[in-house]
Amino acid sequence: MSRVKEFDVDEACDAALALFRRHGYEATSVSDLVTHLGVAKASLYATFGTKHAFYVTALKRYAEQTDARVLASLSRPGSGVAAVRGLLESYVADILGEAGPIGCFVVNAAVELLPRDPEVARVVERSWDTLEVALTMALERAKAQDELPGGSDPATLARFLLTVLQGLRVLGKGTDAASRLKAAVSQAMRLLIQE
Amino acid sequence: MSRVKEFDVDEACDAALALFRRHGYEATSVSDLVTHLGVAKASLYATFGTKHAFYVTALKRYAEQTDARVLASLSRPGSGVAAVRGLLESYVADILGEAGPIGCFVVNAAVELLPRDPEVARVVERSWDTLEVALTMALERAKAQDELPGGSDPATLARFLLTVLQGLRVLGKGTDAASRLKAAVSQAMRLLIQE
Repeated sequence: MSRVKEFDVDEACDAALALFRRHGYEATSVSDLVTHLGVAKASLYATFGTKHAFYVTALKRYAEQTDARVLASLSRPGSGVAAVRGLLESYVADILGEAGPIGCFVVNAAVELLPRDPEVARVVERSWDTLEVALTMALERAKAQDELPGGSDPATLARFLLTVLQGLRVLGKGTDAASRLKAAVSQAMRLLIQE
Repeated sequence: MSRVKEFDVDEACDAALALFRRHGYEATSVSDLVTHLGVAKASLYATFGTKHAFYVTALKRYAEQTDARVLASLSRPGSGVAAVRGLLESYVADILGEAGPIGCFVVNAAVELLPRDPEVARVVERSWDTLEVALTMALERAKAQDELPGGSDPATLARFLLTVLQGLRVLGKGTDAASRLKAAVSQAMRLLIQE
């Protein structure tokens, strides 16, 4: 009979995710994790391995959760342009709410640890690639539905929007981000709409 | 007679700037600074104060240097749109060169330390405000010269471009950033050009 774990692994992972996301990899110590999660150091090591392995597990979990929400949002039936607008507006609402000051875990990880951490780089690149592909597909759909201005290239527009989304996350760390975020989205959307 | 300092303060500040910019605040220890700068710990403390004060001094120095370059670039006579395009292209060249993987020190500081560090926040906000004002002025000039499409609002476009610039810095941390950065700039410029 295997020993029963004394803590809920998913719960511990979510708590670690919140801590790493808010404070970063370097500023989160193993003793912070032990205190915050209420789980013994030996149990954490036995389950998740090193602090680095635990960080990568938490980052992957975050990326999978957010990527799933992005794919669902961009796959909704009807207008492709409306789906993209909905995604941009959901980012702004998220950033102007509680998530802004904490930041996106993927952006935080990229800025803190790329390019020197290849494992983190793989998770970050995969998340950006997913977002770019999902945006391209929604824009291809918009183009097939004759929604986009003539000559629009879905792949190029997707790369542009990926850039705008990362910029929103960075500016969301500052005060008075609202006017900047709303201006960025309103101007970006002008490229997707026939005048 | 005052004691002569045993090291060049500006040189030490530049070396600390390079270290903090590359590794971040938390991951740079005082002993890293001592080793890298070749200056005794007591001398560093006597000149710059705490590690935090030294970090803020280095960040301010970086922001002043980059802000001066941005203002010079956006103030150049002639077409306002060409000046903005020149700035965006200089960011891309910088990021696809050596600066990409290291990142922008202001973005790195914002992502690592905002909002919990009010002193760093003031330096970051000031740099973003400067960039936004300079972009607005260049776009006002473009508008006065009838370069912008009808109905363009310089202040809104400036906030949008500020967002794109921060996004370029984040994506520059990844591999294969070139296609994303070039697409972002080409699409952003479409909003500044009469078709």
